Amino acid sequence: MSSHFGRVTVPTDVDMIEETKEIVKRWGADALRDCDGTDMPEELKSLPAKIYSTYYTTRKDNEWAKANPGEIQQMYLMTEFYTAMEREELRIPVMKHLYKEQLKPNTIDDIKRWWEVIDRTTGEALSTDCWSYEEETMEAVIHKPLRYHDYTVSFLAFIMWDPVHMYNFLTNSWENVEHQITYDVRQPKTKEYVAEKLRRYLKNNPSTDVVRFTTFFHQFTLVFDEHAREKFVDWFGYSASVSPYILEQFEKEVGYPFRPEYIIDQGYHNNTFRVPSKEFRDFQAFQQREVAKLMKVLIDICHEDEKEAMMFLGDHWIGTEPFGEYFKNTGLDAVVGSVGNGTTLRLISDIPGVKYTEGRFLPYFFPDVFYEGGNPIKEAKENWVTARRAILRKPVDRIGYGGYLKLALQFPDFVQYIEDVCNEFRMLYDNMGGQVPYSHFKVGILNAWGKVRSWGTHMVAHAKDYKQTYSYAGILEGLSGMPFEVEFLSFEDVIADPSVLKKCSVIINVGDAYTAPSGGAYWENEKLVCALKEYVAEGGGFIGVGEPSAFQREGRYFTLANVLGVDKEIGFGLSTDKYNWEEHEHFITEECKGDIYFGEGMKNIYALEEAEILCCREENVQMAVHAFGKGRSVYISGLPYSFENSRLLYRAIFWAAGREKEIHRWYSSNYNLEINYYPATGKYCLVNNTFTEQSAIIYDGNGNDREVTLKENEIIWYDFL
Amino acid sequence: MSSHFGRVTVPTDVDMIEETKEIVKRWGADALRDCDGTDMPEELKSLPAKIYSTYYTTRKDNEWAKANPGEIQQMYLMTEFYTAMEREELRIPVMKHLYKEQLKPNTIDDIKRWWEVIDRTTGEALSTDCWSYEEETMEAVIHKPLRYHDYTVSFLAFIMWDPVHMYNFLTNSWENVEHQITYDVRQPKTKEYVAEKLRRYLKNNPSTDVVRFTTFFHQFTLVFDEHAREKFVDWFGYSASVSPYILEQFEKEVGYPFRPEYIIDQGYHNNTFRVPSKEFRDFQAFQQREVAKLMKVLIDICHEDEKEAMMFLGDHWIGTEPFGEYFKNTGLDAVVGSVGNGTTLRLISDIPGVKYTEGRFLPYFFPDVFYEGGNPIKEAKENWVTARRAILRKPVDRIGYGGYLKLALQFPDFVQYIEDVCNEFRMLYDNMGGQVPYSHFKVGILNAWGKVRSWGTHMVAHAKDYKQTYSYAGILEGLSGMPFEVEFLSFEDVIADPSVLKKCSVIINVGDAYTAPSGGAYWENEKLVCALKEYVAEGGGFIGVGEPSAFQREGRYFTLANVLGVDKEIGFGLSTDKYNWEEHEHFITEECKGDIYFGEGMKNIYALEEAEILCCREENVQMAVHAFGKGRSVYISGLPYSFENSRLLYRAIFWAAGREKEIHRWYSSNYNLEINYYPATGKYCLVNNTFTEQSAIIYDGNGNDREVTLKENEIIWYDFL
Repeated sequence: MSSHFGRVTVPTDVDMIEETKEIVKRWGADALRDCDGTDMPEELKSLPAKIYSTYYTTRKDNEWAKANPGEIQQMYLMTEFYTAMEREELRIPVMKHLYKEQLKPNTIDDIKRWWEVIDRTTGEALSTDCWSYEEETMEAVIHKPLRYHDYTVSFLAFIMWDPVHMYNFLTNSWENVEHQITYDVRQPKTKEYVAEKLRRYLKNNPSTDVVRFTTFFHQFTLVFDEHAREKFVDWFGYSASVSPYILEQFEKEVGYPFRPEYIIDQGYHNNTFRVPSKEFRDFQAFQQREVAKLMKVLIDICHEDEKEAMMFLGDHWIGTEPFGEYFKNTGLDAVVGSVGNGTTLRLISDIPGVKYTEGRFLPYFFPDVFYEGGNPIKEAKENWVTARRAILRKPVDRIGYGGYLKLALQFPDFVQYIEDVCNEFRMLYDNMGGQVPYSHFKVGILNAWGKVRSWGTHMVAHAKDYKQTYSYAGILEGLSGMPFEVEFLSFEDVIADPSVLKKCSVIINVGDAYTAPSGGAYWENEKLVCALKEYVAEGGGFIGVGEPSAFQREGRYFTLANVLGVDKEIGFGLSTDKYNWEEHEHFITEECKGDIYFGEGMKNIYALEEAEILCCREENVQMAVHAFGKGRSVYISGLPYSFENSRLLYRAIFWAAGREKEIHRWYSSNYNLEINYYPATGKYCLVNNTFTEQSAIIYDGNGNDREVTLKENEIIWYDFL
Repeated sequence: MSSHFGRVTVPTDVDMIEETKEIVKRWGADALRDCDGTDMPEELKSLPAKIYSTYYTTRKDNEWAKANPGEIQQMYLMTEFYTAMEREELRIPVMKHLYKEQLKPNTIDDIKRWWEVIDRTTGEALSTDCWSYEEETMEAVIHKPLRYHDYTVSFLAFIMWDPVHMYNFLTNSWENVEHQITYDVRQPKTKEYVAEKLRRYLKNNPSTDVVRFTTFFHQFTLVFDEHAREKFVDWFGYSASVSPYILEQFEKEVGYPFRPEYIIDQGYHNNTFRVPSKEFRDFQAFQQREVAKLMKVLIDICHEDEKEAMMFLGDHWIGTEPFGEYFKNTGLDAVVGSVGNGTTLRLISDIPGVKYTEGRFLPYFFPDVFYEGGNPIKEAKENWVTARRAILRKPVDRIGYGGYLKLALQFPDFVQYIEDVCNEFRMLYDNMGGQVPYSHFKVGILNAWGKVRSWGTHMVAHAKDYKQTYSYAGILEGLSGMPFEVEFLSFEDVIADPSVLKKCSVIINVGDAYTAPSGGAYWENEKLVCALKEYVAEGGGFIGVGEPSAFQREGRYFTLANVLGVDKEIGFGLSTDKYNWEEHEHFITEECKGDIYFGEGMKNIYALEEAEILCCREENVQMAVHAFGKGRSVYISGLPYSFENSRLLYRAIFWAAGREKEIHRWYSSNYNLEINYYPATGKYCLVNNTFTEQSAIIYDGNGNDREVTLKENEIIWYDFL
């Protein structure tokens, strides 16, 4: 495969035949795809390119949905908190603040079994004879409530409009398009029907090479409010993967009675920041097994017809869990996903057990970017350069674009830039030689999720920053392009076998107190705590970011305070004088220019006696280091992604690992340039991550240095002799 | 009593006879006192002034202390957290980081009974055969510890140098002064001895009119580190009020076995920010009863000899609890205390059940302020003006000064200023007429302590600001000079009788999550929560500052979120979109100029749908209002004391009470001026709290307005006709 052809997928449409041919040639595309709202023209099916066909298992068949109302998809929802102001009754309008065209309370199934009214003041579920539901007003009526107690109603609702269809419909201002109802492939009639339909589809579409499932069965949690604004989004959420049919199976399998609260979770809906409960972990495992089983049925049908099966990582991806235990047994050929940054690139490219992965790059060819006077090339450049450093660590096997090709063609500079990107991608893919690049050592990310949320911690919606997460997400974004192996470990992994820590030279725990990334009540676990301490005492490195190991207990807020050398003053320790406030120069901060940017930072962190403070602002320690036994620890309050911060993290990792003397191997003196070496081909490359010219002294694997200058965004390849 | 004489106490010394006479005349003093380090000259005892004699019950008698080593005072201490790095043993140096001249581990009493070694990783106390103590190395030795567990040693130590004597010794650089050892008046031999000694003292000092106890029996917790720096200070701390003798009595009384951990409290030492445990409350009640009993013995001795008994509110004041249940039974005549600001003034002047109170004003005549080139008048002015607004609400009955008179006399301007202050004090005292001033209505402060910590919440050391407290202390400081009755309510009060809330027009809960001022686990109590909600629903006002009602549970961080209209995002709710961010103009903020100063402020507070935001900074709500039933609620992130903030609080209180239409009664349009009305004398006064001239429109009780201009610090008195 030459650098001028292959590994690229382009979107097309019925009115874009000649233009598509031209683009295929210029970008060296070897695959064509349709999208939500576009169709594949017959004339292109004979091109020497694979044909991807977007395939929806759960929608685009309202006839079926309407004929089988009991098999429409459902989700668990919770109302707001209502205070009982009167003794007589409390009426709770269950659909208040929900988009009524999208959701319909499920009163077909026994609401007394599947709904739950909870007294949130006591935490107890009400006996079912204490409340009723009025269909016409859509109100739950609590009879003789306890005055001034808060109540919520947990209920099941049918998803009458697919959330992604709704999102695309609104974003693209579609008109005269029927709202697509979802149906649940897990249910018996629909399961039969969908399998049969797929068989029929394949028969009728012989030119399809790749069935691009968009996606499988369960939508991530996405709810809209009465103004059709996003109300709740959790890209990892399981709330829309439920139905009495499924839950009865679950109940049978786990052997204990199901409660809506297992899914509702006080209204937090087991989002990815919640330390998962046992019941939710059970449910997730059950769903993974069942989803994998059913995926295999559909994938086998594709294979029988000699088609490849590709999954889009998004939309109805819930339960597939590509980093989970069951995914690899499905026989899936490929995964394609949207690349927002380095982290989301690795979220795709690191997926084990598939033949290839594909990244859908930004921008989407949609009118929100491709309008007259718009600057799509800017977004494309940022997207490419941001993702490239992660590609250089673990490439996707293909890149591609989505949307309306017609829109892109109105921007010739953009078309040229993408042509360059395609060539650059093919060259670097070739130079990497299909093998793993050189890593200095392994870094572990320790949290409540571990492997199953590889690269997915600190994400709410896909690749979107939140005020409470960007300071932590920067750690993963930095790592996504660094020459370290990265392993995601869960607390359960460590509790089951403490020796898993020893594979890593440095362990990182990053997040806010009591959240899943930090760990919450896991830090009560003696085995976990001792494993971490032993690991560091015997020479391991520990980096804590934000509120690592936080769990207020026995005189400490940070369980690992003795390791970290810092703790947080939450008001109980004010009587104790604190004298260690002096800042010190250090190996880690040697390359920092001016004030370090900690993002949200952290208040009221103080250093224990032996810790060395690297940065302190108004008696709030932002960074400190500490020795524990033979090992070392680094505390950082937060570290949003930037080139400078990424270098700071890189140095912190080397220092924590006790390997600071080796830092001048595969190193660039300028943190805007990064270097990667590929033993399989003997090549190494230098990339300029900025939009300006950069110079640096670079060091190869033997520590030999040379001066180099790179143009904006440039990548240069060398042979390591 | 004219305005030119009386109500003033001055310090003297043996070499200051003529000078004292002069000062007595100029300041109109009617009492003389000695101090720690000074003596009362014989020649002055015949002056027409009361003689205060400083009397120490617990020190200044090393001979007795040394003869009775078992009756030296003791305190409970905890070591740092030591991690067991080895399997064989863990050695914990108990005196590390303590001042060895001050403390001596008590090995006289059975250490296996009175000491405790705790595995802080499990939270369990070690069986006593698992550890031993080496006298010579002062190390506790834990045999075969659990590797990587953290251990602490709780131990009793004798107080070999009185902490206040030590503090005065170091501050004044005393030389050739023997360290004063403390002895415990609660113990049988010493009790007898001290009572007898007091009798003897009174016989030998017939000219003494007032026995100024400094103080009674137990020092507040004050520990120094190895460099003689303050290591731990809790002005309310009971850790130094213990001994096996006392604890055995306690055990007998409560009927359950004592554990050192009841006092040690994970190393937090039950400081005033800890929600008190049942055991600590039991201990405190026991100590109060016993201390009051013994106080009465000594006070009775004074009375037998026709002397007054006065207590200094400080030093060994622990257990006396002037706002507690037993204090009033002691027969004490007077309390004197140090005035740092309005809050500490009220801490003295509000004490019930004594004949009179006296404020010791600043600065102390000590060389740290009265040095050549120093500016004592500045400190005196600030102290007086800050305290004056509180005096105008509830005056102390006397004022006084302490230290070396000789130092003050070197500053003639200072002497003149104090003369003016003494005259001003006497005039305002007369004009107040010994009755309560006019109050608009009652405001309640609700916390874990209630009445017993009246004016004492948010205090660590006396009148000292801490980074974590000044934003909350501002509320009390504001209230100390406002025309509201202030009542301190505990959660237990409300749980026992919810109707206590109804006495108040507004309830304030102010503090950091899980601390005693905020309430912590009390917010799990259904009765408390419903009482508050009912109170507001029926028309009461609620002001929450910082993290009011915080206790993460059942989907909420603020238990009263439905009342407050705000909650805190601690990471579990990121998936829920939040759209209410707009600021609104409001009655409360009408007088704010520029940016409001919230002090530390609060991050990640968001408004519920119906709340109205008054101030929001970078998606952190700082102030919001909300209606709940017939009542209203105000959220404020923090409010350090300033004249502007005090006015903001004043308006918030009026608004929360639903009485904003009445605000133009006894009101000044300029927040630098405050107005108070005294029905008993028909007088009202206007004070200028600033050091510059101020003008305002003022409104009397009928809403009649007039324009006024006041000179710096001026106070003007009017008759209300």
